[in-house]
Parts: sequence; C-alpha cells; structure tokens
Amino acid sequence: MEATGVALIGLGTVGSGVAQILISHGDRIARRAGRALQLRRVIVQQVDKSRSLQLAEGLLSDRLDDLINDSSISIVAQLIGGLEPARTIMLAVLESGKDVVTANKALLAEHGPELFQRARELGRSIAFEAAVAGGVPVVTGIGQCLAANQIISIQGILNGTSNFIVTRMMSAGISYQDAVSEAQQRGYAEADPRLDVDGSDAAQKLALLSQLAFGTHLNWRQIPRTGIEQLDIQDLQYAEQMGYRVKLLATATLESAGLEMHVSPTLVRRGRPLAEVGNSNNAVSVVGDAVGRVFFHGQGAGQMPTSSAVVADLIDTATGRSLQTFQHLPLWSSDEQPISITPASAHRGRYYLRMMVVDEPGMMATVAQALSHHDVSINSIFQPESSLPENPQQVNLIIMTHATTGGSIKAAVEELEQSPATVSECILMRVLD
Amino acid sequence: MEATGVALIGLGTVGSGVAQILISHGDRIARRAGRALQLRRVIVQQVDKSRSLQLAEGLLSDRLDDLINDSSISIVAQLIGGLEPARTIMLAVLESGKDVVTANKALLAEHGPELFQRARELGRSIAFEAAVAGGVPVVTGIGQCLAANQIISIQGILNGTSNFIVTRMMSAGISYQDAVSEAQQRGYAEADPRLDVDGSDAAQKLALLSQLAFGTHLNWRQIPRTGIEQLDIQDLQYAEQMGYRVKLLATATLESAGLEMHVSPTLVRRGRPLAEVGNSNNAVSVVGDAVGRVFFHGQGAGQMPTSSAVVADLIDTATGRSLQTFQHLPLWSSDEQPISITPASAHRGRYYLRMMVVDEPGMMATVAQALSHHDVSINSIFQPESSLPENPQQVNLIIMTHATTGGSIKAAVEELEQSPATVSECILMRVLD
Repeated sequence: MEATGVALIGLGTVGSGVAQILISHGDRIARRAGRALQLRRVIVQQVDKSRSLQLAEGLLSDRLDDLINDSSISIVAQLIGGLEPARTIMLAVLESGKDVVTANKALLAEHGPELFQRARELGRSIAFEAAVAGGVPVVTGIGQCLAANQIISIQGILNGTSNFIVTRMMSAGISYQDAVSEAQQRGYAEADPRLDVDGSDAAQKLALLSQLAFGTHLNWRQIPRTGIEQLDIQDLQYAEQMGYRVKLLATATLESAGLEMHVSPTLVRRGRPLAEVGNSNNAVSVVGDAVGRVFFHGQGAGQMPTSSAVVADLIDTATGRSLQTFQHLPLWSSDEQPISITPASAHRGRYYLRMMVVDEPGMMATVAQALSHHDVSINSIFQPESSLPENPQQVNLIIMTHATTGGSIKAAVEELEQSPATVSECILMRVLD
Repeated sequence: MEATGVALIGLGTVGSGVAQILISHGDRIARRAGRALQLRRVIVQQVDKSRSLQLAEGLLSDRLDDLINDSSISIVAQLIGGLEPARTIMLAVLESGKDVVTANKALLAEHGPELFQRARELGRSIAFEAAVAGGVPVVTGIGQCLAANQIISIQGILNGTSNFIVTRMMSAGISYQDAVSEAQQRGYAEADPRLDVDGSDAAQKLALLSQLAFGTHLNWRQIPRTGIEQLDIQDLQYAEQMGYRVKLLATATLESAGLEMHVSPTLVRRGRPLAEVGNSNNAVSVVGDAVGRVFFHGQGAGQMPTSSAVVADLIDTATGRSLQTFQHLPLWSSDEQPISITPASAHRGRYYLRMMVVDEPGMMATVAQALSHHDVSINSIFQPESSLPENPQQVNLIIMTHATTGGSIKAAVEELEQSPATVSECILMRVLD
C-alpha cells in the first residue's frame, strides 16, 4: 500500500518525540497502520536552530505553504501551543484538505466549536487524544470504548504539575512554595505555573471530556474552580490523619437537575484508586450506566507519553478510524441535547472545614450553632492540641460535615468568619468518600 | 442513514444485557454509531422458554438459518460459551458475509488462528473487547491506543472469581473453601469453578492480550500457571504484615531472551494500583516503551459491564472501525515476528517462601545453606511465634528472597523439602515490588 504523507508543525518537546517514533520505529508503525507513515515536512520557526534530533535533509521549513501546498501530505500533527497563530494555522491546514492531530487542549477548549464545525464541513477530522491526560487513553476510552453508556460521572486528576506539588508537599512535609520550586527545577512546572495550579488547565480538560461524555456546550470558564495555591501543609496532614489524601480533582456529575462540575482541592478517601495517584501522574475515573466504574491511570504529560498518544492518533487517522469516530463524537455537535450546568450553590457534597478558633468556654456551641443555622450537619470534629505555643488560646478546629449544598456551607462559613469565636479565614475543601 | 441490522446468538446473561441496551437506548446508540442498530433476530435454543426480557414478536428463532440467510443482518453478536457448536456457528456466520462480535475468550484462545484467518480471507472482522476484562477496555487500549509502543510488559488481574475469593479470604479471615462457597452463593463462581481458580481462564485472556501486544503465536496451555486452590489464609496474612497483598496475577514480560509469561498467585506490594484491586474487579497494568505505565481498572465480568463492551464493539463494527482495526491487529497474523517464550526455569524474580521447620539449633544454618547452594540470596526472614501449641517445636519460617531464577528457587525448594529441618512442603509465591 502507498505510504501516507505526514507533517509536523512544531518541533519542541512533543514534536521531537513524535518525529523520533516515526523515524526510529517506522516498521512498527507501518504494520499497525497497514501502510507506512512517512514524515515529509516539519514546519518550525527557525530552520537553522541547532537541534539534537537529526532529520533528513530538506525536511525542515519555516514556510507553512510548503506544507499546505504539498498534496502528498495528508495528515498534519500540529504540535504548537497557545491560541494564535495555532487557530489560524489549523484552519488553513483543514482548508487544504488535510486531517489534523493535536495536543493543544487550550486551543480546543477555546476555539473547539469553530474548528470542529469547519472540519466537519470539510469532511476532515481532528484527533486529540494527547490533549487530555497525555498518554492515558481517556478520549478514546470515553468517546469510543464506553459509547454504549450514558456517562454518569467523571472524576479526574488532570493536571500533573498540581499533582506533583501536592504529592511532594505531603511526602516531604514542605510548603506549597517549596514544592513549586522543586517542580520548576525538575521541569514539571513552567516558570509561570499559574494556569496549572489555579485549576484552569484541569478545567479546560474537564470541558473537553464533558463535551465527549455529556454533549455539554460550555465554555471552560463556566466551570467553578479553586486551585491549590492556598493549600497549607497542615490541611494535607490533618486529611491524612483522617484517612484522606488531598488531590486537585476535576469532576462532572450527572444529577437530576443537570450537570454538576467543578475543579477543586478535594479530600479523597484512601484506598480509592484516585487517592493513590502520585507525582505528576494523571488519572480518570468514569462511571457509565452499563459498565459501572472504569479507572484509567498513567503519565499525563512528558515528551514520550504525549508522543505515544499523538502517534496513536496518526495511525487512527491513516487507517480512517479517526474520521469515522470524529463524525459521530458529540463534540460541539448539534446532535446531542446539551445538558445544563447546575449552579454551584445547589451542589450537594461533604466538606472539610478548618478554622482557627479561640479555645474558650462556649466556643464549640457558637460554631455548632452557626453551622446549624444553615442546616449543615457535623459528621466529625477534630481539635488537635494547640500548635502555637505563643498563643495557646488559639487552636485549630477541623470539622467534617455530612452532605450539604454549596450554598449552605458558603453561608455557614460567612457566619463563622464573622463570629468572635473565629480568628482566621475558614479553609474549605470538598470530600470524596 | 439506513439502519444496520444486528442479530444475537444466545440470550443468556450477556445476550439479555445487550438486547436491553439496544432496545432501551436505541437513540443513544444511533447517535454514536451514526446510524440505527436494529435488532432483527435473536437465535436461542428454546424459543418458548419463559424470559423476563420482552422482545418484539417474531424476533426469536431456534434456526440459525433464519439469521444466516437474512441479508438485512450485517453484524452478529455471538454470545454463547464453549468451543462447539460456537466455532462452527462463527464460521458459518463469517461465511455468510456478516461481521462478528464475541465475548467468548475460550473459543478465541483455542480456535483463534482458524477463525481470524477465515475472517481475514472473507474481508470480515471479529471484535472481542468483551472477551478480556469485561467492561475494561484493554483490547482497544493495547491494540489501538498504545499502537505507537513496543509493549514491554502486561500484568493483569484477569479473573474476577479468583480475585473475589482472595479478597474475601483476607477481608473476612476465612478459608479458601469458605470463600469459594460465598462466591458461589453470590453468583461470582460457577458450581464447578475449576477453570477460574486454576488459572486457565486468566491464561486464556493473557494469551489474547499477548498476541495483541507481542504477536506471540502461542497456545494458552504453554503458559505456566498456578491457581489459588492451595492458598492458605496464613500466607495472605503474612504477606499483609510485610506490606503485600496476594493476587492471582497474569503477566507477560519482554526480556532479552524472549517473553516471560506466567499466571500465579503473587505478592504485590501495597500502594501499587494492582494491590488495591478488590472483589471481582479486573485490572491490567501495561508498560509501553513510549507511554510508560498505563493502568486500566473496572468490572471484568457481570451482565452490564460485559454488555457495555459488546455494544461498543457493535458500534465500532457498524461505523467500520472494527474492520480497519482487525486488518492490522497482530493477532495470529504472519506479519509480526513472533517472540519466543522463555522457559520458566530462566525467569528471574523475587520469591516468598514459607515452610514449617523444626525450631532447634542449627535449623537456620541448614535452611540458609540449602538456599545458598542454589545461589538464592535471602532478602528478609520472618519467624512468627509458634501457632501450634500442641507442637511448639514446629514453627513457620518465611523467607523473602532477592531476585533469582525459577530454576534456582525450584532446586532450592527441592533440597529444603528433603532436609530434616523441614517438616512440610514449601509454599512458594512470586513477588512483585
């Protein structure tokens, strides 16, 4: 069978990994795709930059037209980040009649509706397994393998940087800032890690998975999100003592009123597979109405795991599977009934609540009353001995609630923070049992 | 788009589940397949048997020809167990030009070469996601999602019955026999659970996954296997004390000399996701050269999880994806270089060894010498206090070895069993750190 011409746009970390697999393992890829995938063009910004990867003479170009006008290229792996010029380039590639593979979740989360519609109109496909959870096949898992199911919930650890930071805080007993520095030194975090640690990256990935699973038509910014920047090592340790691990969890749950979605640090009960996901790994736990719970776990980022997903998409596109899948994915398509998002105030769940209180007679009654005013019922209370020798009157009080709504707990926290018994802001986290 | 005609052969547990999804969730399936999947025929042995599932008039038939000769049916889910008549029926279905979906791993493990070759000759496909690990998508995971990788190892908990039994032995502190009875009462084990507990079922599934991953051309009977029938609650408890859980593990590991494969009870270090797989769940941990380790976990059996996989295969077949995948899967195909299986005596690994010894001076030296004669090096020793008040001189001795070969540990065990220091047979299990 004739070889399929492939091109790359971008030769950074992932681009180099993909090129390496295509070049070093051409035989393997050819067997699995039923035809050779031949790398015919790599578009970069600077052709003469020195690179460790040796490519054949003439493969590199800094002119997109060398790719667009080459009819021998039918699949393009677009491996550059950011929104522009990534969007314009992807549209141009689609217009030229080529199929696209991408790992750029920010681009899809932002411009997915436009890009997917245009691809559909043109009879082309966009494959994006690498855009969510790197090497862990959750896009195929949800979009194809669980296609018989109504998905009921998705719970994911989708940001490897955040997971590395909370894992290190706990294992090394260090502060958030020290863990961030270590993540930066090891290359797990950018110089500006904001989008990773504030929950935006996880929200973008959750939006993509939710569109696959539920046909939601939402902008990722609509997803309520709390990051890990305010996490205190104390709370991680108290959680551990009570049998939980703190994880930055991205969840979408189908409820009768609609879809409950959020990204937030969450106490996950030990023994649950999600609680045991360490370092920079990613994991997704999906519940379907037929299949029950399915759990996927692996490396969510990094050069070769991400390249593994990109090359799988290249093979899928070359065999024609991607196009068949793409045509029927409920991604920004008008075929599926979109499900509405329930307001955060209506979400029910358990909460972890920590506050610094003045340890004097009546304090506990004041706290209990404030909670009771808002129908928040206490499941357990834990008051460790004062850790402030200079101020033994101030003690930490940790409360685990029974299930309550986001609105009730928020109102209770507001009342508590205004109460004279409380001398700090309340730390509030969700609980997953 | 015109509807695709679907038929079922067999209306047992899984057949009824599949029919239920197709009938109750026709809209959902049609959206995801891009066309309606219409159930047009169900072949059963007894048409007039009373069934809880209500099917449309005239759908049931006890004559296979009603399916074979119906050109409006293009996909057949063959959901009967055993080898014959399952094999003959599948060949007839393929000859009639229809694609097949099956959950019958015994049939594929036994007659895969013949069935797959015939399907290929006829330009038809056989999809079998449900044949391994039920609702957990490991066949698509390995065959499609990890297609960019050379798989390095597969470690699976592939038999739900066995996993339920070892989980219950440990959690309830009961004997093997009592756990088997409980599994039978709950419907997790057959009246004759032999193929589940002796490792045959897991070996058949491992053979299928290894063919996908490594292109091995082996008969599942070549896989060395030990079942759980001899497991003693004591060993589970000692393992737990040392930080391990015992699981019936099916593994295939690519080594320089070839492929190391076996099914056997194995001490899996706590904290590894495989150690935490409880009840009747299945899990597979796969390492690929690019992606690293990917872990899949979920319900490996049961009506709806298995039906979820069968219906996903029906959708894949209707869209045409199955055929494209099937053509390139290295399953009994002559395209892949088969990898040879290394003899069990050459396998390297750590071992757990327990024996009853006479607690007298010199005993430990005798044991240590026997091991040393065969180059087996001791990692740790644990001698609990005697639990036999009637015979306090006889004590259990538990030894964890460093890595050694299967041949060495076997020779050492033979010497130990003949030594006067040892008063019982040795219990030997593999260790996965």
